[in-house]
Amino acid sequence: MTAPAHTHAVTISLRDADAAGVLFFARYFALAHDAYEAFLDARGLSTGVILRERGYLLPVVHAEADYRAPLWVGDHAKIHVHVEEVRRRRFSMRFDLCGPDGGVSCVVRTVHVAVDKETKRSAPLAEEVLRALREE
Amino acid sequence: MTAPAHTHAVTISLRDADAAGVLFFARYFALAHDAYEAFLDARGLSTGVILRERGYLLPVVHAEADYRAPLWVGDHAKIHVHVEEVRRRRFSMRFDLCGPDGGVSCVVRTVHVAVDKETKRSAPLAEEVLRALREE
Amino acid sequence: MTAPAHTHAVTISLRDADAAGVLFFARYFALAHDAYEAFLDARGLSTGVILRERGYLLPVVHAEADYRAPLWVGDHAKIHVHVEEVRRRRFSMRFDLCGPDGGVSCVVRTVHVAVDKETKRSAPLAEEVLRALREE
Amino acid sequence: MTAPAHTHAVTISLRDADAAGVLFFARYFALAHDAYEAFLDARGLSTGVILRERGYLLPVVHAEADYRAPLWVGDHAKIHVHVEEVRRRRFSMRFDLCGPDGGVSCVVRTVHVAVDKETKRSAPLAEEVLRALREE
Repeated sequence: MTAPAHTHAVTISLRDADAAGVLFFARYFALAHDAYEAFLDARGLSTGVILRERGYLLPVVHAEADYRAPLWVGDHAKIHVHVEEVRRRRFSMRFDLCGPDGGVSCVVRTVHVAVDKETKRSAPLAEEVLRALREE
Repeated sequence: MTAPAHTHAVTISLRDADAAGVLFFARYFALAHDAYEAFLDARGLSTGVILRERGYLLPVVHAEADYRAPLWVGDHAKIHVHVEEVRRRRFSMRFDLCGPDGGVSCVVRTVHVAVDKETKRSAPLAEEVLRALREE
Repeated sequence: MTAPAHTHAVTISLRDADAAGVLFFARYFALAHDAYEAFLDARGLSTGVILRERGYLLPVVHAEADYRAPLWVGDHAKIHVHVEEVRRRRFSMRFDLCGPDGGVSCVVRTVHVAVDKETKRSAPLAEEVLRALREE
Repeated sequence: MTAPAHTHAVTISLRDADAAGVLFFARYFALAHDAYEAFLDARGLSTGVILRERGYLLPVVHAEADYRAPLWVGDHAKIHVHVEEVRRRRFSMRFDLCGPDGGVSCVVRTVHVAVDKETKRSAPLAEEVLRALREE
């Protein structure tokens, strides 16, 4: 068990619940991405800046989630963000979504690649991205 | 009662429900906007084309909804789209969201303005927008 | 200008943006509701507890928003929560969504009523709701 | 290549786009679930009926997506629904999300289990679920 690169706090809200009163399965991915954006932001790299000022995008090419226990509306949850692997043109993230008792409710994984905004082709990860991902 | 300019069919799905099993109040706006996009599309003006190929945007400057009866997960609903008012720089839409029995569940209203994509300033509505809105 | 009853911090994330890179109009309502839930939670009344343990619901019967300026992906925004009016069976909330410069980007208003969970009929606001709304 | 069990048509709308003008990665799961609900509905089993009248739930325990090409706002897409495997207590679905040119944009997979609504424990799939999944 390595320490998370970042921990993001979130309260499960009605907008993300399904009709059973628990977090809707697709929203785990949305919340994981919120945590990913907060992680990058904490390391000085805002999603907004990437979007508006940089020549690359970091689209998700694979995403998966394993659901172990529901998160309920009103739960104060924590999302522990881990950088799993960094290569020249892609990187993998893991997000452990934990309920109020600290137990892991769901593990989300995403794989991102770098793409040139103009050509839409694969590109090496920018230096600033490598730095943000690798920072201890 | 004038005839709607367009009618959009939608089934209330789990992704849009809240924990009480009914359509979450903010999603009425999202579904109304889906119906607005389908209405424009049916009149030859795709939201995608506006976004990627035109020099204007049509942001919402006011939105409101009056909720009369819930829509339930699984309900086959209809959204009747009305063009309420068209002026030089703005227009108003009304969306009647109706449940399976035909009764109005919610009335959504939106006011849109034209904005120049570059300058972000108010602009007259493009001819193609006026045509789409006014077509009988 | 009265002081807000609660202030909720939020970063505008990709999941809530539209294709122009700004907060999608319907998501202002979702974020306002997040702030409403955080406000109630801060006053000891969790949405989750209401849903699972109480005999009432507090559905929105009216919602409206006036949009003044866009919020951009990555913006650190604040939502100031105001209780506008409390009556026997309904109450009104106002949410001022403010951008990083402190200016108001959007004002959202919601009107809620109390409904008995079993009968689905209008009911007086529960004592705990009145206390939460009126607390100084 | 087996024929899909169901095909669900959807237009990519602004509510589901991200700031790059393409379908946000988490929304592929939401749209796949819409298609799953439409598939069950077409086979006589409405999600709403399950929620309100049955003693079981069918939560997702695993979900994954492989993204090959973006879907753009305004795209008329098709979701081909496949039942991949049916066992006593679980089943697997595959969703091929195809763009306007018919090419596969994304493959989503979900694994569902049956859970008793009261006890929250694993249960055998109900007969009506087996029938819906296996129907030719």
